Amino acid sequence: MELYGERGFDQTTVAEIAARAGLTERTFFRHYADKREVLFGGGEMLAERLAAAVAGAPDLARPLDAIAAALEEVGGLIQAARGRDFARARRSIIAANAELQERELIKLASWADTLAGALNARGVDDRVARLAAETGIAVFHVAFDRWVGDDEDRDLPTLIRESFGELKALAAERRTPATARG
Amino acid sequence: MELYGERGFDQTTVAEIAARAGLTERTFFRHYADKREVLFGGGEMLAERLAAAVAGAPDLARPLDAIAAALEEVGGLIQAARGRDFARARRSIIAANAELQERELIKLASWADTLAGALNARGVDDRVARLAAETGIAVFHVAFDRWVGDDEDRDLPTLIRESFGELKALAAERRTPATARG
Repeated sequence: MELYGERGFDQTTVAEIAARAGLTERTFFRHYADKREVLFGGGEMLAERLAAAVAGAPDLARPLDAIAAALEEVGGLIQAARGRDFARARRSIIAANAELQERELIKLASWADTLAGALNARGVDDRVARLAAETGIAVFHVAFDRWVGDDEDRDLPTLIRESFGELKALAAERRTPATARG
Repeated sequence: MELYGERGFDQTTVAEIAARAGLTERTFFRHYADKREVLFGGGEMLAERLAAAVAGAPDLARPLDAIAAALEEVGGLIQAARGRDFARARRSIIAANAELQERELIKLASWADTLAGALNARGVDDRVARLAAETGIAVFHVAFDRWVGDDEDRDLPTLIRESFGELKALAAERRTPATARG
């Protein structure tokens, strides 16, 4: 990760990454399928956790609440597994490489597909499931950006919960002074 | 567009597209910067229209309503300029090509940036602006998919309005039977 930051993703070889980590190239490849895996590894496991969380939500949970709870849970896993410093370094690397930005967007889009499918399997109408999943991922994306922001020290799950609360305020029919034009 | 559908995007040359359209390759290039431009041309112009619509929203418009109105307006432009048949053919081509899917996601992400910037310029707090813009684009994406769906004949602006209405219902604190588990 440090190497990506110093040199840029494209200029860093697997051999260099392995050497920095004190591993042979062969050992490195036992852990990671390729360089990208260092940045995007675990994405599919997290998608499975999202699906399981939605499937396990209380029977009466509303679609957006089931999505919010699933994303909060996965937010907790992301924070526990790698932490904010890793996420901040990762963000800098991705921001400097268009291909990695695309990969990040594709990952989030696939999570939205996973969430929509999991809601649908609970009997939520396909159109409603799609809308709840896509907007849920948008809220997660915003919360994640807040989490890696320079002046933020609160937990990722807290920021996800806060962002869903803000969405509810934004979408409420009544005027709320906090969101009106200043 | 037909050629992309018949052969796939990567297998179609500019010369073939130009010939099918009854143009020389040189004339074609006066119209389109490259092959991708046929699919993604106009994206920046539409981003400008989004920004102008948000800037011109009524002083008291709430952030999400300003976003919804801007996307409805641009939805009307998209429908008028190229129509649903073009959009359906375009969807099939993009669905078959990972690089084009990424390009589509990048375009939508840049529209979200544009909308957030335009709200911010109206005095909306940066965090709220980002949240409203990202969720607005998620709603637009869902509405657009509905519009190009096989069994849909309503207008794109109508579907955008309907989807924002559904988001408000999803995000409302009260339980709404329509979205409860079936």
